[in-house]
Amino acid sequence: MANGLPRLKITDVKTILTAPNGIRLVIVKVETSEAGLYGLGCATFTQRPMAVATSVDEYLKPFLMGKDPDRIEDIYQSAFVSSYWRNGPVLNNALSGIDMALWDIKGKRANMPVYDLLGGKCREAAPLYAHAGGRDPEEVADSVRKYMEEGYRHVRAQVSVPGYSVYGAGGGKVTGKIWKPLSPEQKGAFEPTPYVNAVIRLFDHLRSELGNEVELLHDVHERIPPIQAIGLAKELEKYRLFFLEDVFAPEDIEYLRILRPQTSTPIAISELFNNMCEYVPMIKDRLFDFIRCHLSQIGGISPAKKLASFCEFFGIRTAWHGPGDVSPVGHAANLALDLSCYNFGVQERHVFRQETQDVFPGCPELRDGYLWSNDKPGLGIDIDEELAAKFPFPEHPFNGAWPPVRKLDGTVIRP
Amino acid sequence: MANGLPRLKITDVKTILTAPNGIRLVIVKVETSEAGLYGLGCATFTQRPMAVATSVDEYLKPFLMGKDPDRIEDIYQSAFVSSYWRNGPVLNNALSGIDMALWDIKGKRANMPVYDLLGGKCREAAPLYAHAGGRDPEEVADSVRKYMEEGYRHVRAQVSVPGYSVYGAGGGKVTGKIWKPLSPEQKGAFEPTPYVNAVIRLFDHLRSELGNEVELLHDVHERIPPIQAIGLAKELEKYRLFFLEDVFAPEDIEYLRILRPQTSTPIAISELFNNMCEYVPMIKDRLFDFIRCHLSQIGGISPAKKLASFCEFFGIRTAWHGPGDVSPVGHAANLALDLSCYNFGVQERHVFRQETQDVFPGCPELRDGYLWSNDKPGLGIDIDEELAAKFPFPEHPFNGAWPPVRKLDGTVIRP
Amino acid sequence: MANGLPRLKITDVKTILTAPNGIRLVIVKVETSEAGLYGLGCATFTQRPMAVATSVDEYLKPFLMGKDPDRIEDIYQSAFVSSYWRNGPVLNNALSGIDMALWDIKGKRANMPVYDLLGGKCREAAPLYAHAGGRDPEEVADSVRKYMEEGYRHVRAQVSVPGYSVYGAGGGKVTGKIWKPLSPEQKGAFEPTPYVNAVIRLFDHLRSELGNEVELLHDVHERIPPIQAIGLAKELEKYRLFFLEDVFAPEDIEYLRILRPQTSTPIAISELFNNMCEYVPMIKDRLFDFIRCHLSQIGGISPAKKLASFCEFFGIRTAWHGPGDVSPVGHAANLALDLSCYNFGVQERHVFRQETQDVFPGCPELRDGYLWSNDKPGLGIDIDEELAAKFPFPEHPFNGAWPPVRKLDGTVIRP
Amino acid sequence: MANGLPRLKITDVKTILTAPNGIRLVIVKVETSEAGLYGLGCATFTQRPMAVATSVDEYLKPFLMGKDPDRIEDIYQSAFVSSYWRNGPVLNNALSGIDMALWDIKGKRANMPVYDLLGGKCREAAPLYAHAGGRDPEEVADSVRKYMEEGYRHVRAQVSVPGYSVYGAGGGKVTGKIWKPLSPEQKGAFEPTPYVNAVIRLFDHLRSELGNEVELLHDVHERIPPIQAIGLAKELEKYRLFFLEDVFAPEDIEYLRILRPQTSTPIAISELFNNMCEYVPMIKDRLFDFIRCHLSQIGGISPAKKLASFCEFFGIRTAWHGPGDVSPVGHAANLALDLSCYNFGVQERHVFRQETQDVFPGCPELRDGYLWSNDKPGLGIDIDEELAAKFPFPEHPFNGAWPPVRKLDGTVIRP
Repeated sequence: MANGLPRLKITDVKTILTAPNGIRLVIVKVETSEAGLYGLGCATFTQRPMAVATSVDEYLKPFLMGKDPDRIEDIYQSAFVSSYWRNGPVLNNALSGIDMALWDIKGKRANMPVYDLLGGKCREAAPLYAHAGGRDPEEVADSVRKYMEEGYRHVRAQVSVPGYSVYGAGGGKVTGKIWKPLSPEQKGAFEPTPYVNAVIRLFDHLRSELGNEVELLHDVHERIPPIQAIGLAKELEKYRLFFLEDVFAPEDIEYLRILRPQTSTPIAISELFNNMCEYVPMIKDRLFDFIRCHLSQIGGISPAKKLASFCEFFGIRTAWHGPGDVSPVGHAANLALDLSCYNFGVQERHVFRQETQDVFPGCPELRDGYLWSNDKPGLGIDIDEELAAKFPFPEHPFNGAWPPVRKLDGTVIRP
Repeated sequence: MANGLPRLKITDVKTILTAPNGIRLVIVKVETSEAGLYGLGCATFTQRPMAVATSVDEYLKPFLMGKDPDRIEDIYQSAFVSSYWRNGPVLNNALSGIDMALWDIKGKRANMPVYDLLGGKCREAAPLYAHAGGRDPEEVADSVRKYMEEGYRHVRAQVSVPGYSVYGAGGGKVTGKIWKPLSPEQKGAFEPTPYVNAVIRLFDHLRSELGNEVELLHDVHERIPPIQAIGLAKELEKYRLFFLEDVFAPEDIEYLRILRPQTSTPIAISELFNNMCEYVPMIKDRLFDFIRCHLSQIGGISPAKKLASFCEFFGIRTAWHGPGDVSPVGHAANLALDLSCYNFGVQERHVFRQETQDVFPGCPELRDGYLWSNDKPGLGIDIDEELAAKFPFPEHPFNGAWPPVRKLDGTVIRP
Repeated sequence: MANGLPRLKITDVKTILTAPNGIRLVIVKVETSEAGLYGLGCATFTQRPMAVATSVDEYLKPFLMGKDPDRIEDIYQSAFVSSYWRNGPVLNNALSGIDMALWDIKGKRANMPVYDLLGGKCREAAPLYAHAGGRDPEEVADSVRKYMEEGYRHVRAQVSVPGYSVYGAGGGKVTGKIWKPLSPEQKGAFEPTPYVNAVIRLFDHLRSELGNEVELLHDVHERIPPIQAIGLAKELEKYRLFFLEDVFAPEDIEYLRILRPQTSTPIAISELFNNMCEYVPMIKDRLFDFIRCHLSQIGGISPAKKLASFCEFFGIRTAWHGPGDVSPVGHAANLALDLSCYNFGVQERHVFRQETQDVFPGCPELRDGYLWSNDKPGLGIDIDEELAAKFPFPEHPFNGAWPPVRKLDGTVIRP
Repeated sequence: MANGLPRLKITDVKTILTAPNGIRLVIVKVETSEAGLYGLGCATFTQRPMAVATSVDEYLKPFLMGKDPDRIEDIYQSAFVSSYWRNGPVLNNALSGIDMALWDIKGKRANMPVYDLLGGKCREAAPLYAHAGGRDPEEVADSVRKYMEEGYRHVRAQVSVPGYSVYGAGGGKVTGKIWKPLSPEQKGAFEPTPYVNAVIRLFDHLRSELGNEVELLHDVHERIPPIQAIGLAKELEKYRLFFLEDVFAPEDIEYLRILRPQTSTPIAISELFNNMCEYVPMIKDRLFDFIRCHLSQIGGISPAKKLASFCEFFGIRTAWHGPGDVSPVGHAANLALDLSCYNFGVQERHVFRQETQDVFPGCPELRDGYLWSNDKPGLGIDIDEELAAKFPFPEHPFNGAWPPVRKLDGTVIRP
C-alpha cells in the first residue's frame, strides 16, 4: 500500500473524439487496475485535435502504462520532459488530458470532489460572464440587458463593424456596405481603425444606457497593432471595464510594459499562452490583472494550480478560458479551481447543449449567473462513450483550423 | 454532503504544550463531529509559545467552532484577516497549527497521506543534511566524515572560534582564550572578523581533507554586517558550497541585490521570514536559491505549498527549516511537501529522541541519509497526550527566549 | 550614577486590560526602583489583546527585570531579537508598550514632555482630520459641513452603498435593497464596483457643494482589487483629495509602482504595516505621501521616530493612525511625534469619551480642529487602575476579532 | 504569371518517415503543378514524430492545397496562426518542413542554391565542431587529439562520471562503482556535483595536455541547478572555452541575467527553444553568444533567417543545432544559412552514415573540418522514397521518447 489504499496501476490510456456541440473535443480516459476506477481529462485543441490524439495514443500511453496514478506530480514532470522539446500546444494539451484524468482518479479514490483535494471551497459557486453581441450598440445593449435580467453581473460586449468581418459580435458576419478586399479568397476583411472606433462608440452607448453597475468586458482578440491597442485601452478607461482581453498577441506581450503605466483599464490575457516564458515575466511584474489560461492547453490542473498560487502573490485573479472549445470535463476542471483558489476572478460562461449534457453526464450547472458544481467525487463528470461516437468531428475545409483573417490589402493578421 | 462524505464540523480546537526533547513545542489539535476524527498541527514558536497558545485558545478556537474542516482555504484566508494586522510571528504560528491539522484531517478522511493530496510522491525519500561541528577544522572534518560514513551526502559544518561565542559549533561554547567583553552580563562575545577568518580556514581544510564530492553547507546565522557577508560568500565560492545560509538578517535582505552579481555561492535564506513582503521581491528576482521557511511560522501547509509552487517558476528549491524547534508534526508536514514538490532541494536533519518518538507515535524515519514517510493517512503522526503532559516546559530565566548576543563593546547583535 | 541621576532598575512590568470606550485596550506599566517613578505605554492590538498581554507578561517581563530603563535603545534592540522571529503583530505591540513606557519614564526623570526629548515643538498643536459619513452624498456633505463649522479643515468622507455592507459610513450597516449573498453566514456582502461608483459620486457631490478649500480624505480600506483601486485613484484626481488611504492591502503594496506614474492623488498607507520589508522599499522610491503607522503596532516611539526621520529625507509626511483602538497613551505618543517631527502631515481625530478621560487622566485635548498637549513631563498621561478594572473587555462571538467580510459569491475579502 | 515564370500551385503535401541512421526522421515533400518540381523540408522531432506527421497530413496539407508556393511568407504567417495556439514543438516542426520545402522549390525554380537567394556565400564552407568523449580525461584528450589531427579546430568534450549516468560521454553508460538509486526503475542516476567536479577536472586536463589553441566546447545539457551552472561557468572561465552550452533549461533562462555579470565564458543556448518569448528578451539584452536553434523546430528557414538577422544587431553568432536528429535536409538548410549569414559562428558536425547518404542523395560533404555545399539548386538534396521505406522507425518502449533521468532519490530531472 502506497497509502491507506491498495497500490494502483495505470492499465489503459485512450482518447475519445467527439463533437456534440459541433466543436472538435478530445477527451482522455485513464483506466486503472481497480475495476471501474478511471479518470477523464480534457485535451481539447480544436484546431489540431488529431495531433493531440496522436501524442496521447502513440507517446503518452506507452510512457504511462503500469505507472502509479497517485504520483501525479512525477508523471507530470517526467512526461513533460519525455519529449525533450516541450512547453507548447499539442504536447501540453496531451499532458492536460492525462493530468486532469489523474486528479479525477484521485478524487474518486478519496471520495472527494477535486476542489476538496485542492483546499476546499472558498466560495459557493463561480460568477460567470456572458457573451453579448449585436450589429450595433443598440442591439448589444439589448443583449447585455437580457443577461442582466437573468442575473448576470458580468457581460462581455462585442459589436459588428459595418463593412468588416469582426470577432465575437455574432459569428463574424459582415454587415452593411462591404469594402472590397484585394485578396480574392477573402469574403470580408478586418481593419483595425474602424474596429477601434466602433468599440469606443459601443462602450459610450452601453454606459450611458446601462449605467456603471454592470461589469462590462471586451475582447480585442489580438487583432490590432500594439500601440493602437494601448490607445484603445486608454480611451476605454473612463467606461470602467471589468477587463479588456487580449489587447496583444502572445508575440507582443512585452508591450504590456508600455501600456501599464498609461492606463488602469484592467487587462486579461493568456488564453493563448502555453509556455512559462510567456507568462512568468508578465506576472512577476504585475503587468496584467486576469490570467486566462486554457487548462487543456497548459498541462492541466497541476500547472494551473501552481500558476494560480503564483498569481495570488501578485494580486492577479483567475479567469480561466471557458468557451465551447473547452469540453465539459475541462469546464469541471476550471470549476474545481474556481471554487478552491482564493484569487479567483470570474469564469467565462458556456451553455452546454442538451446533446453535450447527454454525452457528458454531470456537466456543471448554470444558475442565477453562477456556475455550480455537482459536488460529486473527482471532477464529477462522466462520458457516455457510445453516444460520444455518434457525434464525429464535422467536415471542414481546413479540418477545423482557424481560417485566415486578412486586411483589405490582403495581409494576413493574428486571428 | 459537501462531497461523497458526510459534512463535518469542527467541534473543538486546543493546544498541547510539551517539551520531550527539552524544547518548547506547541501542538494544535482540531477535533471534528466525526467520532475519533481529528487532526494535529505544529504551531511551535519556541521563543514565544504561550503567546501562540493564547492566540489559538482565545481567538482561533471561537472563530473556528462549527466550521467545515474541508474548507481549508476559506478558513486560512478568513482567519488570516480576522486579526486585521497579520503576517507575522505568533499569529502565523497559530494559523500553521490549524492549517496542518486541517490537512491531517483531510488526509485521514481521504485515507491518503497528505503528500498524495498534494500531487503524490515525486521522490522516494528526502535527502537530509546533517549538522557537523567542532572546536577546530580537524574536529569538524572528523564530524563530517562520520556523517559521510553513515550515508549522508550533505553536511552543514560550523566551527568554534577561539575566544568567542559562536553559533552552531557545539552549543556556542567559548573555547580558548576569552576576550573580555565590556558588558558584565555577557559570558562570551561574538565578533564578525574572527568568525569570518575561521570559516574560510574551515572550508579550506574541509575541501583539502574531504575532496569536492560531499555537499557542504554553512549557516552564517545573520550575525555579520552585510558587506562582510558578501565578502565571505565570495571567498567561499571556490569551496563550492551546496548552500550558504542566512548571510543577512531579514531586515537586510535587499543586500541580496548587491551580493548576487558578485558570487555564485548558492544562497539559502528565509527561516526567519513571516511575511510575503519579505520573500516575494527576492523570489521574483531570483535572488536566492533555497527557501528555508519554517512551516510552523508562515501559516502551515497551504501557504508553503503555494510558496513552493511560486519558487518552482523561478528555479528556487525548498530546504524547509527542520531543527529541534519544529515538532515531529511539523517534520511530517515538511516531509509531505519534500516528497510531493518537484522543486525540493534538501531537508534539514533532526534526530528524534526516544522520548519524542514516544510522545509522537509515527515520527518520520531516518535511514541511509534520507527521511522516510510512514505512508499513513494524513500526516501519519499522532500524539500521546498523557505522556506529553509529563514533559512540561523547562524553567529558563527568559522563559525560552533567545539570550542576547553581544560584541566585545557590548552592542547587541542579530542572534 | 549612569548620568547626573541615580541609576535605576526596572522592578516590575505589567499589563492593564481595559475597555472604557468599548474597545479592548492593552496598557503596559513599567515600574522602577525609584518610588513612584513608572511609565505607561500602549500595546493595544484590539483583535488579539490577550496574545499581546501574554507576550509582555510571560516574555518581556522576565527579560526586562533588573535592566536600566534609561537604555531604551539597547532594550529595544535586544528585546526585538529575543524572540528570534520578529517584525510582526503581537510581538511588536508588546514592544511598543515597553518602549513608550521607557520614554515616559525618561521624560518624567528629565521633567520634560517627551516631545522635548525628541527635539522640541516645531508647531503649537496638531491639525486633526475628522470622520464624516452618511447614507448618501447629501448626508455626508452635511456631516462634513458640520465639522467645517467646528473648525476642522481636514475631513475624511465615507458613504454607504445601498444594498451592500461598506466600511466607515456608519458602522457598516446595509441600507436599501439587499443583494442576496450565497453564503448563509453573511448578513450583507461587499462588492467593489458599486462601492467605486458610489465614492466617485460622493466626491463629485462634495466638491460641487463644498468647494475646493476643505481638505477631503477617503479610506478605501484595502477592499478592492489593486487595478480597480488605481482606476479609482485616477478618477478621484480631479477632486484634489488631501489623501486617499489604504488603496491596497499590505500584501499588494508593490502595486504602488503601477499607480504612481498614473495619478497625483496623494496616497496614505501603512496603518497595517508591522515590518520594515513592507515600508522601506516604498519609502525609498517615494511611492506614497503619508505614513500611517500605528505606533502601538510597530514597536513604539523609538522606531516611529526613526521612521519619521527616514521619511523626511523623501518628502513623506506623518499621519499616524489614531482611531479608538489606540489608547489615550498611544494618542499622547502620537502627539509627542506630531509636535516634534518637522515632516508632520495631519493627525487622525479621536474623541475621548468621558469614561476614557476618567480612566486616563491627562488625555490630549481637542480644540478648534487641533490636538493639544498638556505639556506635562513624559507622555503627560496617567491611568486610574481601579477604574480601569471596572471596564473589562466586552463579550464578542470571536473575542474581538474582525468578522469576515464576504463578496456576494461567498469569497472572504481583505477587511 | 506572378513573376517571369508561370504561376504554380501546390498539388500535394506529404510526410515521409524514415530512420536510416536509427533515428526517427520526418521529411515533408511539397509537390507543385509543374511536373517534377517539388521541395523537401525537414520536420523532424524525433521524440514525437507521429504527432508532427499528423499535423502535416491532417492540417497543413488541406490548408496548403492549391496555394502559390512562391508566397512563402504569406504561407508561413497564415499557417502559423491557423492553429490559433502556436509557437511550440510539433506545430513548429510541421511548419519547418513546409517552409524548407518551399525554399527548396524556389531555389530550383531560380536555378540557384538557397544560399544564393539568401544573399550569397560570405564564406566558402562552414567550420564544424566535432564531439569527443571518453571514460576519463585521458580518453577524452585522446579523442580531441584525434579530431585535431583530422583538421578540426573546434571540439566538444564530454566525460563520464564514475558511478553516474551522464550525457554525451558515450551513450550515458555508467562506469565504475554505481551508487544505488532509490527508484527501482532507474539503472543509473545523475547527480550534479560529481558531474561538475568531473567537468572541471576534464578541462584542467585538456588545457594542460592540448594547450590553448584548440577551441573547446562543452554541453551541460540543462541537467544541473541554475546557480550551480553559474558556478561551473565561472570555474571554467580560465580554460577559455569556445562556448558552454545549455547551462540552463529553457524554463530557467532568466538566470542568464545572474550569470552574465559574473563570467565571460561564452554561452550557447536555444536548441530547445520554440517560442520567441524564450529568445527575444535574451537576445535583446545580449545574454548569450551563440544561438543554437534547431531549424526544424522553430519553423524553418524563414524564421531562422530573421532570427539570424536580429542576432546580427546584437553581436550574437549562429551555431545551429545539427546532430543526428536533424535530417540531411535539415543539415542542408543549416548550411544554406551558415554560408550566407554574416554572423555565422560554427556548425555542429554530424557524420552521415552510408545508409543515410543513400536515402538522401546530395548530403553536404565533410572535408578538412568544414561542411561543404554541393552548390546545386535549392537545398541540393533529394530523397529516395523507396529506399527510405526500407528504414522504418525502430521499436522502443516509449516509442522514441526521451527516457526519464533521475537523481539518486528518484527525482526526475531535465534530460
